[in-house]
Amino acid sequence: MATRAKPHRIVTLTTDFGLGDHYAGTMKGVILGIQPAATIVDITHEVTPFQIAEAAYLIAQAYPYFPPKTVHVGVVDPGVGTSRRPVLIEAAGQYFVGPDNGIFAMVQEREPKFKARAITASKYFLPAVSQTFHGRDIFAPVAARLLSGVPSARFGKLVQDYLRLPPSRPDRTARRGWTGTVLKVDRFGNLITNFHVKDFPSLPLQAFEMQVGLQMVREMVRSYEEGAVKLGHGAVFLIAGSSGYYEVSANQMSAAKSLGCGVGAPVELRILSL
Amino acid sequence: MATRAKPHRIVTLTTDFGLGDHYAGTMKGVILGIQPAATIVDITHEVTPFQIAEAAYLIAQAYPYFPPKTVHVGVVDPGVGTSRRPVLIEAAGQYFVGPDNGIFAMVQEREPKFKARAITASKYFLPAVSQTFHGRDIFAPVAARLLSGVPSARFGKLVQDYLRLPPSRPDRTARRGWTGTVLKVDRFGNLITNFHVKDFPSLPLQAFEMQVGLQMVREMVRSYEEGAVKLGHGAVFLIAGSSGYYEVSANQMSAAKSLGCGVGAPVELRILSL
Amino acid sequence: MATRAKPHRIVTLTTDFGLGDHYAGTMKGVILGIQPAATIVDITHEVTPFQIAEAAYLIAQAYPYFPPKTVHVGVVDPGVGTSRRPVLIEAAGQYFVGPDNGIFAMVQEREPKFKARAITASKYFLPAVSQTFHGRDIFAPVAARLLSGVPSARFGKLVQDYLRLPPSRPDRTARRGWTGTVLKVDRFGNLITNFHVKDFPSLPLQAFEMQVGLQMVREMVRSYEEGAVKLGHGAVFLIAGSSGYYEVSANQMSAAKSLGCGVGAPVELRILSL
Repeated sequence: MATRAKPHRIVTLTTDFGLGDHYAGTMKGVILGIQPAATIVDITHEVTPFQIAEAAYLIAQAYPYFPPKTVHVGVVDPGVGTSRRPVLIEAAGQYFVGPDNGIFAMVQEREPKFKARAITASKYFLPAVSQTFHGRDIFAPVAARLLSGVPSARFGKLVQDYLRLPPSRPDRTARRGWTGTVLKVDRFGNLITNFHVKDFPSLPLQAFEMQVGLQMVREMVRSYEEGAVKLGHGAVFLIAGSSGYYEVSANQMSAAKSLGCGVGAPVELRILSL
Repeated sequence: MATRAKPHRIVTLTTDFGLGDHYAGTMKGVILGIQPAATIVDITHEVTPFQIAEAAYLIAQAYPYFPPKTVHVGVVDPGVGTSRRPVLIEAAGQYFVGPDNGIFAMVQEREPKFKARAITASKYFLPAVSQTFHGRDIFAPVAARLLSGVPSARFGKLVQDYLRLPPSRPDRTARRGWTGTVLKVDRFGNLITNFHVKDFPSLPLQAFEMQVGLQMVREMVRSYEEGAVKLGHGAVFLIAGSSGYYEVSANQMSAAKSLGCGVGAPVELRILSL
Repeated sequence: MATRAKPHRIVTLTTDFGLGDHYAGTMKGVILGIQPAATIVDITHEVTPFQIAEAAYLIAQAYPYFPPKTVHVGVVDPGVGTSRRPVLIEAAGQYFVGPDNGIFAMVQEREPKFKARAITASKYFLPAVSQTFHGRDIFAPVAARLLSGVPSARFGKLVQDYLRLPPSRPDRTARRGWTGTVLKVDRFGNLITNFHVKDFPSLPLQAFEMQVGLQMVREMVRSYEEGAVKLGHGAVFLIAGSSGYYEVSANQMSAAKSLGCGVGAPVELRILSL
């Protein structure tokens, strides 16, 4: 068993493979065959199929809580089998391995030191690479070699032309008005907006209106229960979420159902007082 | 790799976080960042949102099969962000960490030696504690410190006023009559009643009537196949389940669907002969 | 932490237990109680209840990617509690533990050296064996003892009369005609046929018709994107899948939905040119 002095060998997986197929398990077999001491953590395999932005959000939420040298593998890969490149990112003292399709874009937004390499060293892939399952044939073995200490430079050259996505922050549309969006709806029906607490630190002290779907949210609370006590059962309110973003929530109810909206819905914020 | 002589460092997770978000994965990152040698086992993350009793049942089913010193983390926590306390339980040679809301009530029913501490030592929490995700910010780091050998007394003082729930056993309503309930419906549609085999050891030898929903169950069998052979395809019968409780089942069919009832449904037992 | 020189201690689980109950987690507790150094990998717990053939397919897809000595536990077990035997298979340098009901049939099809033992050494089981959960009471402890180095011969004698299933290959129904079936529909709606690439290596170079449900598929592509570019959005095509079988797919859409068919649907292949 490892002690703290020994190297961490943690790899995380974020995919749209679901849990009813052998895909995630097979990737783990490949990793453990190369590096039996790997500790493998599922972030999720239930990304909506082909939704790169959803995976980007989930990876960005999870990685800050992992120790240095963790290897994060992201596989939401509609372009598998085409000329889109595999990339290896170094940022925040950790590694990120996946297709060059924007899946690590929200890591890049947060990390000033962000280096990308195009993975070209096919000797680190499985001997036979399929056209449809690079998670197994390319990303898993590359992650396992990283865990085993192969230096990142061995996998390929630094590139600057990796795929960037438009920033996920709200647009300023008026002196005191912003238009944002819903990044994610979680299992509890919380609507995670793209208004970050760091960008709007005074919002809990301000009068505001936030339109989400057809409904206007005007109240900020500090806990779910405070929302129910202060505003009544079923009320929808804003809360500084564990995600770092403001979230539209209801106490023990789904705000997404109450408001009838989901990922990508527009969110309009107007600040009424300073 | 550990040998048997080395300490176990097992932590289990039981939550209502689902598997489509980053929540469970992020808790694992926190645990591994503190104790890289942890072995993390998911009991389930699919507890129905906010259903504390369901989590209590699942934890109680699982813990007897884990080795000494295992740390069981339970997070079904509708009161997150309020004054409800975090608790650390010692029972059966194992640890239980979660909110003080009854989530460990069925452990307490079974374990005469049950010690509860109110967790107050915030130095063991993450530096920033959110109002909505104590699984990540409090319970995961406390569990990891326990795994790393921090003595339980360091986390807080013993308390007697932890939350108790009504006992889960059936009420005696007549000389030979009891009223119980359905504790859980599993994936196969088995209805797990709260009639424990230890409390009704002679039931397989007795004539009885058990009303569940609108249907009367009168037959006890020893295996699913015996039920089908003896009673015909589709028959609903009682069986001493692996849970330790009597379960209402059908062979390769869902008893829950056949009977049209689920968790919380009343179960009336009448014993006709001794 | 293990280095490559140390023994692998990997066990995989493939069951129909789902993820909402404690069943899979409890099996892991039993395994870790016996062998704390085990690395446990879920292939899936979402096999359709009682569908042995589906589990057989998934295990056969995963095991070739695991290192020697891996122990694969398969529990889809409608006959639990009857006289059906527990078996221990040795094949491909790995172990397979589960009920003798055909769950390892597709391993046997691929592996000429396939030895089966009827597990009879009940001293390796849990002390109390239930009638309904042999995954916990028999298969998990047997797997853990194998990981711990108990020689396979200790578990029981070699048998020849283990359950075989009809081979999963297509029938030849004409000089250039075969009738096969759909083995699996994956999360993306890909229909995995039982036409193996090794048995039909020239198909990508031939003119052919493959009838699946009511639709005729005549095009073979090398990647999903090629399918969309060459045949138009929404087109259904054939592709040599990562499974080793030809798969009926569509680009970023569900071929299963487009064709309205699923597992067990007939697949007729006619080759038009050599």
